[in-house]
Order: sequence, then C-alpha cells, then structure tokens
Amino acid sequence: MQYPEAISRLIESFTKLPGIGPKTAVRLAFHVLDMEEDDVLMFGKALVSAKRDISYCSICGNITDKDPCYVCSDKHRNRTIVCVVQDSRDVIAMEKMRDYQGLYHVLHGAISPMEGIGPEDINVSSLLTRLQADEEITEIILATNPNIEGEATAMYLSRLLKPTGIRVTRIAHGLPVGGDLEYADEVTLSRAMEGRREL
Amino acid sequence: MQYPEAISRLIESFTKLPGIGPKTAVRLAFHVLDMEEDDVLMFGKALVSAKRDISYCSICGNITDKDPCYVCSDKHRNRTIVCVVQDSRDVIAMEKMRDYQGLYHVLHGAISPMEGIGPEDINVSSLLTRLQADEEITEIILATNPNIEGEATAMYLSRLLKPTGIRVTRIAHGLPVGGDLEYADEVTLSRAMEGRREL
Repeated sequence: MQYPEAISRLIESFTKLPGIGPKTAVRLAFHVLDMEEDDVLMFGKALVSAKRDISYCSICGNITDKDPCYVCSDKHRNRTIVCVVQDSRDVIAMEKMRDYQGLYHVLHGAISPMEGIGPEDINVSSLLTRLQADEEITEIILATNPNIEGEATAMYLSRLLKPTGIRVTRIAHGLPVGGDLEYADEVTLSRAMEGRREL
Repeated sequence: MQYPEAISRLIESFTKLPGIGPKTAVRLAFHVLDMEEDDVLMFGKALVSAKRDISYCSICGNITDKDPCYVCSDKHRNRTIVCVVQDSRDVIAMEKMRDYQGLYHVLHGAISPMEGIGPEDINVSSLLTRLQADEEITEIILATNPNIEGEATAMYLSRLLKPTGIRVTRIAHGLPVGGDLEYADEVTLSRAMEGRREL
C-alpha cells in the first residue's frame, strides 16, 4: 500500500528540500493534515508568491520585492561605501549589526575553481559597471566569507579594483568576541596577531 | 532590515512546521527562491490538495482520498480480522510487511491520562459500532505502540471487547530482530522470556 496520491505528492515535495529526508517528509506531510486549512492556504500562497514576487535588485543584486531595493533607494544611506557580500543572507547579518550605513553589492557566490565557479559566474561585472557609472563611491569593503573561496574572491576583486584607484578594504580576521584563545585554530590566531592594534 | 515581505511570510510558514527552527526556515525559504517555478507551483498545489482532498475513511478511520478507503473496499482482504493501530502511518508500516491480509481500525491517538486524552477522544466508539454492525469479524489484533499509552489503550480495549466474545489479541513484545541481548532493557527482556515459544 502507498499513501493516497495527494499525500505522496506532498511528501515528494518536502523530500526535495535540503536536509529533509523521507521520514521527516512524512512527518511534515502528516503535520500539514492536522493544520488549520487557512494556515495551509497561507503556506501555499507564501511559497508561490516568494518565487514570483521576489527578484534581484538591478543595482546591488540583493533579493527584493521592488526595484531598486530599499537599501539602494534609501537617500539617508552613505552612498560612498559599498560592502561586497556573497549572499543576500549576509546583507541581513550586516544590517542586524546596525553599525553600517553604506550600500551593498551581492555576488551570489564566490570564486571556486574546485567547483568550476569563475568570476564570470558571480555578480562581478555588474560591480564594475556600477563603479564606472557611480563616481560617488570611494571605498569597497570586501566582506566575503573567511574561507578559501571567500578569500580567493576577495583577492581577485582587490586586484581587479586596484587600477580604479578606489580604496579597497577587507573585513578583519581575528578571534570571535566571546571566544576562547585556547580553542582558536592556528590560522585565526596568526591573523589575530597580525591584525593587532594599539590601545 | 527585514527580509522582503514575501520571504518573511514563507519563513514564518516554515517555522510553524515541527522540528524546523528559525535558521532552517531561512535556509528552506532561500532554497525555494532557487527552485524551478514549476516545482514551487507543484509544492504549493500539493499542500493545498493534501489538506483538501484527504479525509478519513468512514469505516476504519484511515486517511484516504476516497470513501470507503481502498483497504475497506478491497474484496480480496480477509474481512474477519481487524488490526487496531494508533495512526495512519502504522497502517503503512503494517502494509509494508506484506504478511497481513485483514482490515484495519485507526484510533488516531492513544489513551493518555497525563495529557487528558480519554477513550472518548480517540476513535473507539466507531470500533464498537463497527463490531456490532459487522458479524463477520472474529478477531481484533491490538497493535497499539509498545509504550505506556499504547499499553493502556490495549488494556482498555481488551476489557471493553471481552463481553462481545470476539477473540482479542495483542502483538508480541520481545527482542527486535537484529537486536542485541546485551543492550536490551529489562522490561523487554522479561517480556521476551514470558513470550518464549517451543521450537
């Protein structure tokens, strides 16, 4: 015996999501049966509307429901600094900090020769176009992830942007606040020493 | 900054599912953005259709998309035995075994005084009505879960059904096949000894 058709289809859809195995998919599908019909309808609509209404900002590449996105169209932000990040989720992380008032540029990935992802596969060319068109920009902060791909991307971008004369900076590496010196890895510790500052 | 409205709503819907925390919900929502539009539409439809098209069989209480369900309406099944289970998923587990040819009755729960669930909250009265209406039935197999609630429910049902003269049996407790005697708990081991059979 199989599950009724309608349930099987739902289980199949859940299984396609990352990190959801067959058993979890069954549990989720049965949970949907027990949910209020209104909640299920809202869930279904949210799925379709997320896919249909969300697009990418034509300036910075961040996900948005209007173009340009609210950061790019916000007149109160500092339009001289652009922070380059790998992902839209990184923008949210930066915004949670509340310290940064500049603009963003979302690459949607990082250079990874291992996976065959080159500079042409990520949102780099639009960054160059943007820098050429917008003369206000004086600093580019490279906030790609502190791993191999992120470092390679930062290195690539810094070399690419040097000739433009714009100041290119990289966010600091060091010990995370609240961390423990004893458990820090050698590379992080070495970077923390390198980046030491006078008090 | 918050996520765009359409994404926030989807994240919220995902968070309502069991075992999905805020971080996983964000990951799933972003995965939906990267999915093919057709797959997302199918997912949305599957959600709504699972909720709308699935109902409970008026005879056995199992989930079904037609009434009576395919087990109750199958003429080739042994109509003298009814296996009582707690959940529709238990029916699937039994059917996977391929040994059992009788009918089912799904309780949709188990008696649990701790959670205030009494016999009137689960599908018991329809079992009695069914037994009174259907004189073919000669055996009831109690296949509720081997835990406190399941045992209490089996005990309750066996006392309730005794006066009807129908044979009431309980599935065996013992060591799971492929298990290890060393790691078996005392209660299971004691039940396995109790239930020993001649070879």
